[in-house]
Amino acid sequence: MSEGEVKVLGTWASPFSTRVRIALHLKSVNYEYLEENFLESKSELLLDSNPVFKRIPVLIHGDNKPICESLIIVEYIDEVWSSGPSILPCDAYERADARFWATYVDDKFFPALKRAVVSGSEETKRASMAEVEEGVVMLEKLSKGKAFFGGDNIGYLDIVIGSVFEWIKVIDKCTETQLLSQAPCLLEWGARFSSHEAVKDVLSGVAKLAGFGLKLKAEI
Amino acid sequence: MSEGEVKVLGTWASPFSTRVRIALHLKSVNYEYLEENFLESKSELLLDSNPVFKRIPVLIHGDNKPICESLIIVEYIDEVWSSGPSILPCDAYERADARFWATYVDDKFFPALKRAVVSGSEETKRASMAEVEEGVVMLEKLSKGKAFFGGDNIGYLDIVIGSVFEWIKVIDKCTETQLLSQAPCLLEWGARFSSHEAVKDVLSGVAKLAGFGLKLKAEI
Repeated sequence: MSEGEVKVLGTWASPFSTRVRIALHLKSVNYEYLEENFLESKSELLLDSNPVFKRIPVLIHGDNKPICESLIIVEYIDEVWSSGPSILPCDAYERADARFWATYVDDKFFPALKRAVVSGSEETKRASMAEVEEGVVMLEKLSKGKAFFGGDNIGYLDIVIGSVFEWIKVIDKCTETQLLSQAPCLLEWGARFSSHEAVKDVLSGVAKLAGFGLKLKAEI
Repeated sequence: MSEGEVKVLGTWASPFSTRVRIALHLKSVNYEYLEENFLESKSELLLDSNPVFKRIPVLIHGDNKPICESLIIVEYIDEVWSSGPSILPCDAYERADARFWATYVDDKFFPALKRAVVSGSEETKRASMAEVEEGVVMLEKLSKGKAFFGGDNIGYLDIVIGSVFEWIKVIDKCTETQLLSQAPCLLEWGARFSSHEAVKDVLSGVAKLAGFGLKLKAEI
């Protein structure tokens, strides 16, 4: 089931692409990475591969049809390359809990982070910052007492939170806040995560992301 | 792992509650159903169980902490009561594909359905109806040539699409459209799904939902 070439369609600044690449690195899967420039036109391959949402990331694996949506791709990678380190927890309740926090990150926390960086409205910015602060407090609590959210090793929730973590630093850089100063465990976890072998070459870096955020703000 | 009392916090008109109850019925799990009235105040139990989103459905299973978010709950039920009929497909690609269409239903199709029923803006209604029509065409295509989306038996995608199916009929009833007249396979599937032993006692009925939709429209 794990045979066949692997391609990833992504964008360097997207946390959703980042998490797919980290999952493949964790499983030591070779893949071809195809960069999409989403500020310009979308490639034919992307439009053909994801006609419903027309967005990255997309995983193309052998002769299978493309797989879309980052959380779904990460689960697929975990299931197909099952001989590598497990990404999802083994226990059903822990798996549900990890999926819940992933939903929180995607539906609430990251949209607030994004609005806090790119919104032109001061009112939206303030409301979004309050949501981000609340989120940082929750993630700090979740990160206490263990090396990774997944336990001793990087797992699903590390990949999900880790893919948006640099954006918290982007806010601190762009707005002169110190969101992470009250979250020492999360900060330590972030350092461990970012220096992990499967992660360090995938992350974009805060300075580059901050520049991208400012460009995005100017264009929307 | 499957021991312990099971409680479900839900609302009769919510497709998200409906899918949890259908999954439990499919697995022949006894449970206590606690109805929340979300137009009035939320119960203490709901607020304690889902402090992050403060919304139904919630599954409480034995001594485990509550599990939230309908798709996550359905996967949990499938994993914990594994001796019952499988809900998710066995094949990793098919599982990813089912999860993708579930994401489509929750992120795009159902929100459009809801806006088409309750929105007071004619422009929003028109745009939403176009999205719904596009969705019905896609679901018709997906439903062709098989008894259920899951194959010969009801599966994950049947539960997800089936939980919002009556809302398509609500639109036809409220707006005098005939959305399903161009989707004969979907219509036949709907009849099979709605009369299934695990489903028939859970669905609310089009007339009751239409009344609720009109009430909601008046209140928002």
